[in-house]
Formats: sequence, C-alpha cells, structure tokens
Amino acid sequence: MVYLTRVEKFNAAHKLWVEEWTEEQNLDVFGKCANANWHGHNYTLHVTVKGTPDRYTGFVMDAKVLGQLVKRAVIDHVDHRNLNLDVPFIPAGIQPTSENLVIFFWEQLVPQLPPEVTLHRLILHETDTIYAEYYGE
Amino acid sequence: MVYLTRVEKFNAAHKLWVEEWTEEQNLDVFGKCANANWHGHNYTLHVTVKGTPDRYTGFVMDAKVLGQLVKRAVIDHVDHRNLNLDVPFIPAGIQPTSENLVIFFWEQLVPQLPPEVTLHRLILHETDTIYAEYYGE
Amino acid sequence: MVYLTRVEKFNAAHKLWVEEWTEEQNLDVFGKCANANWHGHNYTLHVTVKGTPDRYTGFVMDAKVLGQLVKRAVIDHVDHRNLNLDVPFIPAGIQPTSENLVIFFWEQLVPQLPPEVTLHRLILHETDTIYAEYYGE
Amino acid sequence: MVYLTRVEKFNAAHKLWVEEWTEEQNLDVFGKCANANWHGHNYTLHVTVKGTPDRYTGFVMDAKVLGQLVKRAVIDHVDHRNLNLDVPFIPAGIQPTSENLVIFFWEQLVPQLPPEVTLHRLILHETDTIYAEYYGE
Amino acid sequence: MVYLTRVEKFNAAHKLWVEEWTEEQNLDVFGKCANANWHGHNYTLHVTVKGTPDRYTGFVMDAKVLGQLVKRAVIDHVDHRNLNLDVPFIPAGIQPTSENLVIFFWEQLVPQLPPEVTLHRLILHETDTIYAEYYGE
Amino acid sequence: MVYLTRVEKFNAAHKLWVEEWTEEQNLDVFGKCANANWHGHNYTLHVTVKGTPDRYTGFVMDAKVLGQLVKRAVIDHVDHRNLNLDVPFIPAGIQPTSENLVIFFWEQLVPQLPPEVTLHRLILHETDTIYAEYYGE
Repeated sequence: MVYLTRVEKFNAAHKLWVEEWTEEQNLDVFGKCANANWHGHNYTLHVTVKGTPDRYTGFVMDAKVLGQLVKRAVIDHVDHRNLNLDVPFIPAGIQPTSENLVIFFWEQLVPQLPPEVTLHRLILHETDTIYAEYYGE
Repeated sequence: MVYLTRVEKFNAAHKLWVEEWTEEQNLDVFGKCANANWHGHNYTLHVTVKGTPDRYTGFVMDAKVLGQLVKRAVIDHVDHRNLNLDVPFIPAGIQPTSENLVIFFWEQLVPQLPPEVTLHRLILHETDTIYAEYYGE
Repeated sequence: MVYLTRVEKFNAAHKLWVEEWTEEQNLDVFGKCANANWHGHNYTLHVTVKGTPDRYTGFVMDAKVLGQLVKRAVIDHVDHRNLNLDVPFIPAGIQPTSENLVIFFWEQLVPQLPPEVTLHRLILHETDTIYAEYYGE
Repeated sequence: MVYLTRVEKFNAAHKLWVEEWTEEQNLDVFGKCANANWHGHNYTLHVTVKGTPDRYTGFVMDAKVLGQLVKRAVIDHVDHRNLNLDVPFIPAGIQPTSENLVIFFWEQLVPQLPPEVTLHRLILHETDTIYAEYYGE
Repeated sequence: MVYLTRVEKFNAAHKLWVEEWTEEQNLDVFGKCANANWHGHNYTLHVTVKGTPDRYTGFVMDAKVLGQLVKRAVIDHVDHRNLNLDVPFIPAGIQPTSENLVIFFWEQLVPQLPPEVTLHRLILHETDTIYAEYYGE
Repeated sequence: MVYLTRVEKFNAAHKLWVEEWTEEQNLDVFGKCANANWHGHNYTLHVTVKGTPDRYTGFVMDAKVLGQLVKRAVIDHVDHRNLNLDVPFIPAGIQPTSENLVIFFWEQLVPQLPPEVTLHRLILHETDTIYAEYYGE
C-alpha cells in the first residue's frame, strides 16, 4: 500500500456568519472573519489516495489524472468563487470553515476516483498557520 | 547603507471590474477575476527600508517597530477586508490589482517612517506565482 | 472527526550537554551542539487537535483561541529564552532535544484544551531538515 | 514513542517507459514523462524513524547519524544519477515512479538502522505538487 | 514604473560536459554534474516585466497572458526535455548551466512581450540553494 | 553580466545588549531580544556574485566552490556559535543584528572570491519575517 498525494490550489472569498445570530454575536464569535463585505484566501488542498503501484506503469494512479479529477470535482467549483454563495455542494447557511470544507470536498471526490485507489486523506491549508485534515470518518 | 525588510501578511477579498464596461467586456478581460461575488487571496507584503545601522543598537530601525508601523498604516486597513469596498485609501473605481496596491501602500507608508530610514521597495505577493514590486517612481 | 492544526513559531537558544559526562564525551556525542556558549534555532510548532465541527460555527475549535492557548501554554515560556536554563517545565539536566520538547509541550497543552477537542499530534521543526512528532503515547 | 524525521535531497534524471509497449502506447500513457532523452527532478526525501528518547542524550537517534545513514544507503546511489540506468537497487524495467522509489528506498534503509529505532514512514516529493508516502506494508 | 513577476516551473534533464575535454578533465571540473547518463532538476523561473499600470485594468500587463507567453516562448521547449539535446534555442556544445539558461531565455522572451512592458529581470532557481539572475546586459 | 547566488544556512545564539546602558534601558529598547541567557535563530544567507559565464564551463563561478568558500569564510565561524562571544570577526560590544552581520560577512567574503567575480549582494534572513540586505556601500 503506497499513498500518492496531489496538491492543487484555489483562491476564494468567504465570511463566517450565522444567520440565526445577531450582528453582535457574530462579531463576538467570528471577529474579523465576519466582515460583511467578505475576505478571502489562497487555499492549498492536498488530496491523498492509497493503492498498489501498477506492475507496468508504477502508478498507484496517474498523478496527472488525479490532478484533472480534483480540478473537475472540486477546484473548478471553488476557484475564484464565493464559498458562501457560489458553490452548489456547500449548503446555504453552513459555515465555509476549513473543517467543513474538507468534509464537503471528500464527498465530491469519493465517487470520482477510479476503483484501484481509495481516498485516504484531505489536508486544506487556509493560511500558513491554519489547516484542516480529514480521513473520511 | 543597509536594507532591512519586514514581511507582513493579510487576507482580503476583491474583484476586477471596470464599471464603464459591459459584463461581457469585463469577463473577456478579467475572466474568473471578475466573479460578481468576489474571490480572495492571502497576500504577503515585503516592506524594505534603507539606512545606516545605529552605532549602539545595530538597527537600521527596530524591526518590531517597523512591523507595528506597517500594521497600523496598511495591514489594519486591508486585513479581512474587501479591497474594492472597505479601504479608505483605495479610490472607488480603481482596480485593486497588486500593481495598484503597491502604489497605494507606498503612499500610506512614506509619511509614517522615522527620519533615519527611507522607504526603498515594496513587494506584494498575491499568489505563489504572481507578485508586484515598486520602488516609488 | 476532523483535525485542525495551528502553527506557531519561537526562537530559542539551547545546547546539548550531559553533566555526568566529561567535556570529551559531550563533544564526541553532541559535536557542535555542545558548544559551551550555546547556539539556537527558529522553531516551528504544529499543534493538531481533533473533534467534530460545531453545527453553528463550523469550528472544531476556534483557531484563534487555539493559537492564544498555544502561546500562553508553550510559546510565551520558550520564545527568546534559553531552553536549558529559562523554562520552568523543562527539568534541569534533561536535554532540550526536539524529541524531548514535544513531550514537555504535550504535557503543557493537554490540561489547557477545551473539552470539545482532543490533542492529537505535535510536530516540532528544529531546522528545515529535522523535526520531531508526538502523539501522546 | 516519538517520531524523528530527517530530510535529504537529491537531483536525478529518469523517464517512464514500458519496454513491452509500443512508442505510441508509452506516449499515450506517460505523455511528456516518456521523453526519450529523459527529464529530471529535485527530489526531497523525508525519512521518519520512531523510538524512545534516550535518557541521557534525549535522542530517539542522533539526527546527524540518521542523515549520514540515509546518504550512504540511498542518496549516494541516486543523486546526480539516472534512475532508470544507474541505480543497482532499482531493477531494470521497473518504472522509477515516486511510488516505486519509496518502496526501494525502504528496503535499502531498514537493514541500516540501529536497533533502538524502527523505520516508520518515507515521504518522497517529486515536485511541489506530487509526493508519495510509504509505511512498509 | 511597477514591476510584475510571473513564476513558472519546469522539470528537465541535463549534464555538464565539454566535448573538447577528456573524461578526466570533465569529472575534475564538473564532478557529479558530468554523470554520463544525465541528472535533472525542478527549475523555477521568475520573469519580471516593468511598465505603468493601465488606468482601466490596473495591469502592467495581464499576468495570465504573461504566463501563457512564458509557457509558449520558454517552458514548452524545456519542460520534460533534455537541455543538452532537445532545445532548439540552446546551441549544441554550450553548457546548460543556470547562468547560460537565463541568457537564452531572455532572448526568447524579449521579442514576445507586448509593447507596453519591458523585460526587467529573470531569476532561475536550479535547486533550493543555487539560482542565477539576469538583467539583459 | 550574470548574477549567481548560493544559499547557506547556520544556527546561532545571540542577544542584543548595550553594555553602556542599564538593564532597564536594554529591556526597554530590545525587549525579549535582551534576554540574559540568550536566544537563537536559524539564519539563511544568500551570497550573490556577478560575472560573465565562462565560454567552456558556462559558470560565472563554480557554485560548489562558492559554497565551500562561503562555508570557510563565514559559516564555519558562526554555525552553532554565540554571535556575541565566539566569532573573531564580530568586534566585542557590537550588536549582532542582521544589519551588522551582513557588513561583517561582506568583509570576510570579498578577499576570498576569485578574480573573475565581484561580490554583489548579501541577504541574511533571521526569521521568516525579517531580513537584511547589503551591497557593499
């Protein structure tokens, strides 16, 4: 069993804001992240699959194909978008925190992967000092 | 003459959109960067001053003071903000491209610096692959 | 279960030196790291907690609060300090290697964390080419 | 149990090419990586061992010794070499993909490690966006 | 005058070898870099142009267009290629050192740039510890 | 004229402390950097020379030789040392700030360089957010 990781990047806007709360509550909990006019990040996503290297190609899976698949299933929907408003697979009213994003991305990626690999881990870097990690359970 | 650089970061939303143009023209020129609901970046700003190391402190200027000054003059106004809407020193209708931002930041910084140093260079990284640089003229 | 990591940095001096050994033995085992007048590093600490994203905030825990907590429990005691002499929670005579530091940091962090998360992993980078990792057992 | 990682780098040429296939098949599967005159990479290898910090030295094992051992067992055989032609421990006809390399490197490293540690993990970065990881099974 | 930089990467094989010299001379001067079967690198190229931000777009030039132009003029000719054998604009018998490459790349880029900008600087990183820089004269 | 840069690293202890001042003055000016028991950094030094690529080797100068020369002239004297106490070429009582260090390093390097190159620039990174730069005048 060998693990192969592909790294892809996207740039997006978001804010953290709970509709059921007052402005005061939102600012109290989320601080600057609740700025009404949004802010944004350069996100970096590490997608790790596991499998056995093919006897001919030496690939767990083709890293180029993995990259295309991650772009189609995730990056194309979030790059240069607003994570609160523009992304069909992020339900309205759910905060687009890195912790929630890795779960939504996982659900998008699993059905797209070829049968010879299993999705093992997602790591999403939101800034140089904050990242979330998910193993599917 | 020695050059001292302080690096500070901020996260902001923006879009590129010329009001005088049609939606089609904007999408044609700016592509994804014209997304109506904004996108955003983790920006990294390198502020370089030049001067002579003080004979007692060995400082061109105190790097901690330089950092505080950059935060007060620039970062506090742009961090977790919308660069098109929220920043007093970015005129409405001017595109918040990295090329324009370094000019606006320069104007904010020059009057704040202590007399013993001169502002030499600003470098603003918008992504890992794009950055703008300005020397004040 | 989602994992959230916060990265914090500190700069410290240390040396590796076993009191019970002769100078010759110390130099033989520790080489340059036994320099009597100390040397130092820029350390980078990755603190990973695990938990379930809150249904309202989307946070496993607030990354800003995690950062403050790491600063108070660890960074404030080691930043710009001598790891052999200045840190109450590093016992005298115990080598401040990265391997030992992650164990001491773990013990400082566990009692400070809020009940909704569990400390999962510490990674301490001493240089670009050496790092230690600890999972609490 | 503490994990200690040493990072070492090497620069090598390789190509991906299955002898049993036609040129068309090779180009179809491997694309640019099948270029007849080779291409190359700056590889970065993370070698992680686990063990208990020694009560005197505080070392799981001496990181300098670990580095020397990784150089002798792996780096000296692959640095500034052709991974398809020049490396005794990579069998002819086996693709030098990162997924296969971590397995071959693992086999080279295990017999060289001192008894107080166990090899835990290898990570091999081929580019900034592709890496393979192996845990020995 | 504002400077805009676009960063592009490529992976290539090369060796350093002077045909007029004996094998012994080549090994003496170039060491491991003269390995007959080649070695390779992940190269990173920083292309900096200078100009005045456009009053409408805020662009010195469109960074996406700059990237496409760099790919077409340089990257497509060197990525996954052998720098000694495969690149029309690198004369046979000229060593593909980073110092020579930046000069050849400069000559490829200048005629491709739009009239509103001037090529200012090329930086080519061959490894993490070696890079060459060229200003066209 | 092409510029060639070699990057070397060292780890050192230091403190900032003016003997002529009281403890209160020192703490007031230098804060944590005045800690009596020292602190330290992982320093990164970029040494840039300029010259013309040799018609045979394609080298401005051999980057490996440049590295050896930087190690012998600078790194060997500061690595795993105390910059206030252990370095013959840093005068007692002069603060080992990055701004002063680049000047001392410059003086060490100039007489060691071969005649075909000129020392152009030194950049010394003290942390990820502070660096000093010197051009010899």
